[in-house]
Amino acid sequence: MSCLDPQEKERVAYHEAGHALAALSVPHGAPVHRVSIIPRAIGALGHTLQLPTEQRFLMTRPELEDQLTVMMGGRVAEELIYHGEISTGAADDLERASELARQMVTRFGMGTNLGQLTYGRSLKGRYLSSWSSEEQNYSEKTAELIDEEVRRVSTECYERAKTILTSRRGDLERIARELIARETLDRRRLQELLGSSDTLTEQASTS
Amino acid sequence: MSCLDPQEKERVAYHEAGHALAALSVPHGAPVHRVSIIPRAIGALGHTLQLPTEQRFLMTRPELEDQLTVMMGGRVAEELIYHGEISTGAADDLERASELARQMVTRFGMGTNLGQLTYGRSLKGRYLSSWSSEEQNYSEKTAELIDEEVRRVSTECYERAKTILTSRRGDLERIARELIARETLDRRRLQELLGSSDTLTEQASTS
Amino acid sequence: MSCLDPQEKERVAYHEAGHALAALSVPHGAPVHRVSIIPRAIGALGHTLQLPTEQRFLMTRPELEDQLTVMMGGRVAEELIYHGEISTGAADDLERASELARQMVTRFGMGTNLGQLTYGRSLKGRYLSSWSSEEQNYSEKTAELIDEEVRRVSTECYERAKTILTSRRGDLERIARELIARETLDRRRLQELLGSSDTLTEQASTS
Amino acid sequence: MSCLDPQEKERVAYHEAGHALAALSVPHGAPVHRVSIIPRAIGALGHTLQLPTEQRFLMTRPELEDQLTVMMGGRVAEELIYHGEISTGAADDLERASELARQMVTRFGMGTNLGQLTYGRSLKGRYLSSWSSEEQNYSEKTAELIDEEVRRVSTECYERAKTILTSRRGDLERIARELIARETLDRRRLQELLGSSDTLTEQASTS
Amino acid sequence: MSCLDPQEKERVAYHEAGHALAALSVPHGAPVHRVSIIPRAIGALGHTLQLPTEQRFLMTRPELEDQLTVMMGGRVAEELIYHGEISTGAADDLERASELARQMVTRFGMGTNLGQLTYGRSLKGRYLSSWSSEEQNYSEKTAELIDEEVRRVSTECYERAKTILTSRRGDLERIARELIARETLDRRRLQELLGSSDTLTEQASTS
Amino acid sequence: MSCLDPQEKERVAYHEAGHALAALSVPHGAPVHRVSIIPRAIGALGHTLQLPTEQRFLMTRPELEDQLTVMMGGRVAEELIYHGEISTGAADDLERASELARQMVTRFGMGTNLGQLTYGRSLKGRYLSSWSSEEQNYSEKTAELIDEEVRRVSTECYERAKTILTSRRGDLERIARELIARETLDRRRLQELLGSSDTLTEQASTS
Repeated sequence: MSCLDPQEKERVAYHEAGHALAALSVPHGAPVHRVSIIPRAIGALGHTLQLPTEQRFLMTRPELEDQLTVMMGGRVAEELIYHGEISTGAADDLERASELARQMVTRFGMGTNLGQLTYGRSLKGRYLSSWSSEEQNYSEKTAELIDEEVRRVSTECYERAKTILTSRRGDLERIARELIARETLDRRRLQELLGSSDTLTEQASTS
Repeated sequence: MSCLDPQEKERVAYHEAGHALAALSVPHGAPVHRVSIIPRAIGALGHTLQLPTEQRFLMTRPELEDQLTVMMGGRVAEELIYHGEISTGAADDLERASELARQMVTRFGMGTNLGQLTYGRSLKGRYLSSWSSEEQNYSEKTAELIDEEVRRVSTECYERAKTILTSRRGDLERIARELIARETLDRRRLQELLGSSDTLTEQASTS
Repeated sequence: MSCLDPQEKERVAYHEAGHALAALSVPHGAPVHRVSIIPRAIGALGHTLQLPTEQRFLMTRPELEDQLTVMMGGRVAEELIYHGEISTGAADDLERASELARQMVTRFGMGTNLGQLTYGRSLKGRYLSSWSSEEQNYSEKTAELIDEEVRRVSTECYERAKTILTSRRGDLERIARELIARETLDRRRLQELLGSSDTLTEQASTS
Repeated sequence: MSCLDPQEKERVAYHEAGHALAALSVPHGAPVHRVSIIPRAIGALGHTLQLPTEQRFLMTRPELEDQLTVMMGGRVAEELIYHGEISTGAADDLERASELARQMVTRFGMGTNLGQLTYGRSLKGRYLSSWSSEEQNYSEKTAELIDEEVRRVSTECYERAKTILTSRRGDLERIARELIARETLDRRRLQELLGSSDTLTEQASTS
Repeated sequence: MSCLDPQEKERVAYHEAGHALAALSVPHGAPVHRVSIIPRAIGALGHTLQLPTEQRFLMTRPELEDQLTVMMGGRVAEELIYHGEISTGAADDLERASELARQMVTRFGMGTNLGQLTYGRSLKGRYLSSWSSEEQNYSEKTAELIDEEVRRVSTECYERAKTILTSRRGDLERIARELIARETLDRRRLQELLGSSDTLTEQASTS
Repeated sequence: MSCLDPQEKERVAYHEAGHALAALSVPHGAPVHRVSIIPRAIGALGHTLQLPTEQRFLMTRPELEDQLTVMMGGRVAEELIYHGEISTGAADDLERASELARQMVTRFGMGTNLGQLTYGRSLKGRYLSSWSSEEQNYSEKTAELIDEEVRRVSTECYERAKTILTSRRGDLERIARELIARETLDRRRLQELLGSSDTLTEQASTS
């Protein structure tokens, strides 16, 4: 972490704290295993590790919306703490959130004005095996509807993350300060920091 | 099935019960050979096996609409039972339904405002042999008309499935509970569960 | 033919009878050599064989409109006999009709608002030798005009086929019943069935 | 020519007579070397041979408009003689006319609302050497303007050909009848048929 | 030059005289080294050689507008002398002018409503090394704005060339007649023809 | 530098002085290591070297806006000094600025009406490894929104650069004159020229 200057280190700490606190606050958030400001991949910043959401067979709409809300938590934290001065640090989160919101609308039939249909035909084949693309098999007007629904879903989850982190700003600061001091927190340390109130919301109870 | 948690198992059971009950309720539904919450392919959930609709030479519009209605049955059951909390489990159904509704409109001349024409030219060839695509040989305005008709057809069948499953909610619950208990039901067991009333509607009588 | 069930067999008989009767009724219809409910190719249904329209050097607009009307005869017969319950059996007819109507408008300058011009540039070449496509070298607005004209031409011929088969419903039923009984009819048998009145219209007299 | 039936032969004769008479009537028409109802290529009908317009270094707009008018002469003759019953015989003429009208507008700056500019960028290269295409480097609105101008130019020349052939219908019939009788006419025979009046208009005098 | 007929030769002479005189009249015109009606490349007509504009590191907007005006000079001369009967001879000039006007708007930020931005992303790469294209990375509405600005720039320079050549028609005729007589004129001969008045404007003085 | 004529040399000097002075004036400008009118690459003009902005892990929106403002400084200086007569010298700056402004809007979620989403899917793969492109996975209406936001961001930074250089015109002239005399200035020489007032703004203090 020696290559991050103190200002960057602080920002990464708040960013990851935002993810972790959002994950601990949504009803279907998978348990937070670890949160850290040490990168796990080249080019990445810190990381927040949740288990085991990814292995699920079925995901319900509320669960997917919770995932989106957690993805938004990093940028929301930056926006709150730095008075709207957002950074490039959320680029990967936004890309994953865009992909998920788009799938909700075009693959899972979770839009509101688009019928019980999927949109887009994937192009796969031997020749293009290493290249995945998608054919737009719908009209421009449908493309507009899709964009509007994708924007609506992502904006709702962003606002939801903002509501959560605003109401728990003390916890956000506590996690971030601890991250700056220790760089990595495990699940037990998070629970100690936040007290017993979170053990309840961690259970996936329908909100 | 050990990898499904109890909540997922219950949802899959209702999903498949929805398909099976829709298939038993539409006038041209092919006989339901088996319904199960055991997947038949990697990544799939349960399955409902109908015979032998696929081998038919000709399909009439009412028959295709019945197929669409059966495909919608899984998601409709989830929506009814879980108070609108739909899941990703219907993604494959929606993809097949989209493909079929689109073919009805663009290949079989079953739209209402598009004339007695086919739309789209398939691109096939030696070079691209493993890749099938379709060239849009029509205007944006026609693309909008196609999208509207495809949405109308699919929405009608979705509403039809909802009407069926709502009116037979008792049967839906009975099949689902039995699936949770036994995982797979054959045709005879289904008939026992539902009584003799279904033997009539199983015959392909024009509604 | 053993693989067709009796309902399918009846529908194919009416479908082919529709083609044959339309061919015998339009002024420039090529003589009907044979009509049959036995398929001539895998995936096809029955067939109606006309000679020798395809070898002509020049085709006039009335002749092409007659061809379109004959192509529409199959679906029109199904629509009349089965009270609007059309089937997938007309898919190939509609594809050929679409291709022909499109060529009339874009290759033969037979549209009404598109000027004395051709539209679209075919892409051919060594590299893509097995793949034929067409480059859209015109605006979206022109694409709309083309779609409208193609729809107008095909709808006119569909309505014309409906007028013909409605007015000769007795003949339609007679040919279909004979096809169900004998599966294939040659030209002489068709003339016996329909009486001498058709020998007149078979001559290509301008209507 | 044995494969053309008498009706086709007559139509081809009028079609070629239309080209020849238009070529003899426009101020910049290249001299007609030969006119014939014998095809010069597989798939072609008759031919009208003009010399040596193609070798010119520069072509003026009036000269190009005369070429377009000559191309339109074949279809115009069919339309006049057969009371509007046009045929597929003009397909090649229309394709060449479209290409020329399009070049006038997009390559030679001869449109009226498109500025002194060229439109479209040709794509050529080693990889695609056998395939020539054109990249649309302009907006949809410009594409509409181009289509309108191309249609205007071609329609003007079509109307001009109609005016010419209508006013010289006697000559048109005389050439066609002679073509039916002799199949091919050379320049001298054409001059004998039409009298000395044409020797004047053959000179490229500005109308 | 033996292959040009006298009419073509005259037109080429006026065309090149138009380029030369425009080059001598604009404030930033590079000195005219030679003007000739002898082609320098296959398919080309005459040529006007200016030195050394092409080697410049920086070009200002007025300098680029002067280049455009010189490119327009050939067609403007034809239009003036032949009463609007333009020819195909300006095709290459228009292509170069289109390319330059387009670059001014999309590469050099010289448009008026498009911001300080470049538009279009060039596609280059190993695989497509012999083929250069450009990806449209902007909306249709922006494409319309670009087309409008490109048309405005080129029209302004065309009108400017017309103003110049109209006011110096005597010089235009003098250069053209001399070109018809001698085929090629060098810089000294041009100066003799035009008198000392041009020695002033040849200097690149800001207008 | 012998290949630049004096006028070009002066223009390059003002251009680079514009970059340097903008870099010294914005709150998050990286220190200017060197400014020179000697090119560092073939085809380039002078250069202004800042350290070490490029190595940063995170960039905030104000920092990116400062980068854009510095990129605009070159053209703004030309516009101010030469009374609006801009040149091709800013082409590279504008390309980099367009790329950055576009990334802010489509990758970093820094637009105002586009939601917390990314736009565009990059196409990468083995087959096309040397060719990077981007698939437009959004509607035309979204493309318009993106263009508007990109234009707004770049225009704001351009205006900001204009405000800075207008208010410090004396410093701009001083740096340019020194560059014409010495060709290259290092950081110390810049500080001597501008006095101690800049040592303050060079610190990255939030404005």
